[in-house]
Amino acid sequence: MSAGTPHPREVTTVACVGAGVIGGGWAAHFLARGYAVRAWDPGDGAAGRLSRLVETAWPALTELGLADGASPDNLTVTSTLAEAVDGAGFVQESAPESLPVKRRLLADIDAATAPGVVIASSTSGFAMTDMQVDAATPERLVVGHPFNPPYLIPLVEVVGGERTERWAVDWASDFYRHVGKSVITMNRELPGFIANRLQEALWREALHMVANGEATPEQIDTAITDGPGLRWPVQGPCLTFHLAGGEGGMAHMLDHFGPSLQEPWTRLEAPELTQRLRDDMVAGCESEADGRTFAELVTERDRGVIAIQRALRRLREDRDG
Amino acid sequence: MSAGTPHPREVTTVACVGAGVIGGGWAAHFLARGYAVRAWDPGDGAAGRLSRLVETAWPALTELGLADGASPDNLTVTSTLAEAVDGAGFVQESAPESLPVKRRLLADIDAATAPGVVIASSTSGFAMTDMQVDAATPERLVVGHPFNPPYLIPLVEVVGGERTERWAVDWASDFYRHVGKSVITMNRELPGFIANRLQEALWREALHMVANGEATPEQIDTAITDGPGLRWPVQGPCLTFHLAGGEGGMAHMLDHFGPSLQEPWTRLEAPELTQRLRDDMVAGCESEADGRTFAELVTERDRGVIAIQRALRRLREDRDG
Repeated sequence: MSAGTPHPREVTTVACVGAGVIGGGWAAHFLARGYAVRAWDPGDGAAGRLSRLVETAWPALTELGLADGASPDNLTVTSTLAEAVDGAGFVQESAPESLPVKRRLLADIDAATAPGVVIASSTSGFAMTDMQVDAATPERLVVGHPFNPPYLIPLVEVVGGERTERWAVDWASDFYRHVGKSVITMNRELPGFIANRLQEALWREALHMVANGEATPEQIDTAITDGPGLRWPVQGPCLTFHLAGGEGGMAHMLDHFGPSLQEPWTRLEAPELTQRLRDDMVAGCESEADGRTFAELVTERDRGVIAIQRALRRLREDRDG
Repeated sequence: MSAGTPHPREVTTVACVGAGVIGGGWAAHFLARGYAVRAWDPGDGAAGRLSRLVETAWPALTELGLADGASPDNLTVTSTLAEAVDGAGFVQESAPESLPVKRRLLADIDAATAPGVVIASSTSGFAMTDMQVDAATPERLVVGHPFNPPYLIPLVEVVGGERTERWAVDWASDFYRHVGKSVITMNRELPGFIANRLQEALWREALHMVANGEATPEQIDTAITDGPGLRWPVQGPCLTFHLAGGEGGMAHMLDHFGPSLQEPWTRLEAPELTQRLRDDMVAGCESEADGRTFAELVTERDRGVIAIQRALRRLREDRDG
């Protein structure tokens, strides 16, 4: 922790650098949580675009619940980067996905931002180690990877680069949690982080199927929206298979269905199911279940899936009049 | 279509062969849709297990809406296979996943069931071509692959084997639609069908991450439940990326982010992004969007995600008192 670092709860102003869909989504989120947001984007018409984006998101944010004092009026679009980061207790960079652009911009942000203030990049794939090379104080640079739209999807993946100091990773994780995000703090850099790797594996298999004429994009979407996708906001893939194992849970599932990992069910080769991997999966699921019985987890899943289906059905009925 | 085949809407009795989690789930679904269900399972205590399963599912089914005359009392557990299929207008087989077991059982069911009645297997991975080899009238045998629990998750994947006749695939698709399922009719056999392949690709990548110490099962589950999983019951992976392309949709997405398919973001190699694959993805997404603008799709996604989050939040509040 550095001398100039505010306590995560004491931050009142956030700088958003880059005002595209992701940067604008972050601005909307911070505004809804009651922060003053100072935004800068070198592109033409950034102020107009940003206002429209916040305006579009505001009804959704209102429905989810605004913090005291939250208002779109707390947004200031500045004409220079220096003005945007001036007085900010946290900086979120959301520039286009180009390594040279990110490198240059993060060095510029680092130079303009008060010492000790943490700077996060929204990059969806670059390693901070590769992005922080030109920064004078790289120890406060972290990845804070959101999902689109950042004002609705809670997940943020936080990870540092080789030259990032641990306090900055912890500070960013604390701060994101404080602003209502669901945070995964990663201990090492991994190309694509976690959620994108999972999503990308599914996406690549989908592209293979379309390329081979095995399924259409519509069939793929229906397969997810009306199939496993209905369970995933309630229980993730590990807990889903923990339940698929019945009372025996993940242990039963891996011991009995392990051989199906050898089936040609996707073009992705499975890892070897070692005793260690089996035990790690079982221990992880038991930790997640946190004492809840099989029956309790089934009930939670069923209630969740029913609630989702009823909520989406009501929306469709409202829309179709 | 065969002389003894009923119209899908005229079926009043369904036979469920196999009374495990899937077979019992099917029985609960058909009962809730107002059918008489005749079930048979060679295992000990099948009747008791089946009654408990239906009893457990009934509150959920009641909440989703029962058909006229639906009652758990319309379940008959028989002591022989012949009694179960007697008078049934449709047979759903849900035996354990073993090819020899399925082959033998489907031949027995085929021999005992009235001519023209369609027989579907719940197999989650075997090809009907491999399962129908011992049946005397294989032309009426299809795969009708559900997702767990079959009474809650609408998806059913329907596909025939080499010796299945087209009318049987069409009949099963019609019948499942009539009983409230979301049906994907596949034109060719594909190991793992569609949804399982997608789910399996994600699952294998998850296992690789745990095996390499890159993520824990809990991080993987959080990555999905609080990240892309929140979008998937609303819009599938293709439509999700259609929106990620902004106003330019899937075309912009593939033309700009195509190179990211070369990134080592998963262990699954991507297919070559040919012009044909690009065009098929774009056409599929445009067909799915069905005239809805980018803004309309964004609004639908946001409303859906908000509805899901609010519904799940209410459930948690109710549970935690």
